[in-house]
Amino acid sequence: MAVYSFASGPSALPREVVAELASDVGNYGGSELSALELPFSEGVFSDILAETECDLRALLGVPPNYRVLFLQGGASAQFALLPMNLLGRGRHCEYVLGGHWSRRAAAEASRAADVWVIASGDGRSLPDPKSWRRSSDAAYCHYTTNETADGLQFHTLPDPFDVPLVSDMTADLLTRGLSVERFGLIYASAQKNLGAAGLTLVIVREDLLGRARRDTPAPFDYTRQAEAASKINTPPTFSVLIAHRMLRWLQNNGGVVAAERRSKAKCEKLYEVIDRDDFYCCPASLPHRSRLNVCFRLSSPRLEEMFLDEAKANGFVHLNGHRDVGGIRASLYNGVSEQAVDALVAFMTNFKLRRG
Amino acid sequence: MAVYSFASGPSALPREVVAELASDVGNYGGSELSALELPFSEGVFSDILAETECDLRALLGVPPNYRVLFLQGGASAQFALLPMNLLGRGRHCEYVLGGHWSRRAAAEASRAADVWVIASGDGRSLPDPKSWRRSSDAAYCHYTTNETADGLQFHTLPDPFDVPLVSDMTADLLTRGLSVERFGLIYASAQKNLGAAGLTLVIVREDLLGRARRDTPAPFDYTRQAEAASKINTPPTFSVLIAHRMLRWLQNNGGVVAAERRSKAKCEKLYEVIDRDDFYCCPASLPHRSRLNVCFRLSSPRLEEMFLDEAKANGFVHLNGHRDVGGIRASLYNGVSEQAVDALVAFMTNFKLRRG
Repeated sequence: MAVYSFASGPSALPREVVAELASDVGNYGGSELSALELPFSEGVFSDILAETECDLRALLGVPPNYRVLFLQGGASAQFALLPMNLLGRGRHCEYVLGGHWSRRAAAEASRAADVWVIASGDGRSLPDPKSWRRSSDAAYCHYTTNETADGLQFHTLPDPFDVPLVSDMTADLLTRGLSVERFGLIYASAQKNLGAAGLTLVIVREDLLGRARRDTPAPFDYTRQAEAASKINTPPTFSVLIAHRMLRWLQNNGGVVAAERRSKAKCEKLYEVIDRDDFYCCPASLPHRSRLNVCFRLSSPRLEEMFLDEAKANGFVHLNGHRDVGGIRASLYNGVSEQAVDALVAFMTNFKLRRG
Repeated sequence: MAVYSFASGPSALPREVVAELASDVGNYGGSELSALELPFSEGVFSDILAETECDLRALLGVPPNYRVLFLQGGASAQFALLPMNLLGRGRHCEYVLGGHWSRRAAAEASRAADVWVIASGDGRSLPDPKSWRRSSDAAYCHYTTNETADGLQFHTLPDPFDVPLVSDMTADLLTRGLSVERFGLIYASAQKNLGAAGLTLVIVREDLLGRARRDTPAPFDYTRQAEAASKINTPPTFSVLIAHRMLRWLQNNGGVVAAERRSKAKCEKLYEVIDRDDFYCCPASLPHRSRLNVCFRLSSPRLEEMFLDEAKANGFVHLNGHRDVGGIRASLYNGVSEQAVDALVAFMTNFKLRRG
């Protein structure tokens, strides 16, 4: 039986990438050594790291005045490291609260910084960027492009403004076209669209470097890591290789343009089943629905449990909603195939016929 | 041709573990999913994490009043996180400078804390613990048990004292018997004796929790991670599985007692060749020689280069010394087999015959 994961993270990987990585672990490139054994300071790994950065720059169109950092700790670590690195002396930072993860980002930042909340959502929709109460003297303005727990996503960019825009794109980086130059800093942990857990990308405009607090730990100091080509200490070498394989896979499958087309097609199929009648119900408001996390409910907790159990028995795993939210969530990151979504649509249609 | 890695990190893994992990990546436990795709919040990964902790506790004899944390960022991140987590208000911390890595640990801590250097080595030997100028009111006393760049190792423990002993054991954890109860905190990144890069272990006595500075990032706050069973955010799931496989391998191969026997046997064979005459020369003083990093020189840089080139051509890779030190270094972590060492001994003997 085919098994399809719709996990929110670590997420599904394309089967071709899984096969490549299994071979890399067994015997990397005919070296008779495992990819897990590559020393980080030698040429082979340095080449992997350089190629990974190069591919990422090409896929996203990262301008030359931006640095790409390969860090550890996940996006949650960045929540605290952003103010340590970017705040400078005596300034405040602005946060847009659109859902679970941006609230966590703001809460974590507020333990080290003066955080001004400039807009909030209502759980079902996101605050329109035109309504954000931005000031011209903030150190940065933070928002989360996609709220994975709530199933919400911004589909428009804020207007250009003086204050650097900082964005957590963990959930949607590399799933749609992106104007990097509209942002001061973009960060994303890799376990959704770019491979397995343990790697965090930071893309930062050069003029924002040099502002870190003196006690920022060296491996998390953007400036020092930029100077050291992300090799201040041992990077998560195998996680970088996974990202490398994922980026090559994206390149070989039409780049970000095709990834966006697939992303739209996958979520539209699911929302179509959900919207057909009121057996399934999606709480997210239409203009803010996430392409990556299709969150929906059934009429009772008992029916939801039955859905999850039967789905699992049929090979559709990790469909449970975020632990703080409940319900059902199908995460459709880059590694989830259209075939997996078609199979899930058939299951959902059939389940409704039997239980509706 | 067999290829043997003597890398300082990520280090060699036992071939059985490599084969298991390649299979885990391809299809984990017959699940039809890759181990890279295991969601961190579900039962399968939670079981892996719990078993890993349990095996580590059993192998090292970790007392019940110690917590085991699975973090990211490497030992270098801990250099800065130790004072953030342990210092408390207005106190100082003590550092013993035995070599390259303890100097880096102290330098990093001093950007956030009042660091007192209480003993220093001379590059060839380590300062006798009886000579450390310890005070009774320090928040903690830090030393590095094995200096990987210098090839030095402490073979005796400091006498018991009021101030908690904090130790970087990245290089020698699980290579010899250990009285955990003599330490307040032990930390080690995993890429030497416990698998691949991306995972850092912290073993901390419970009474040292609750002292973190308010702005310590949540994923690096020992207390909050202890409360969250190391799952405040997505842990480096595959790196935890690698550690799990390595710990089981250690258990199946006689535990720490046998690991210590192998560790002694491996380094003794190399030191024996080196000490036979003055063709090879080990700068480390006899009582402080490291069992894990056998560092040696030849009579000229040209001869050292020739040695490294011929070694590589014969399948002995990653034998170069630390970039700040030079020379030759054979790292003999748990994953390096006695067979690999025997082969290297034969090569070194032969090289001397031809070039001596």
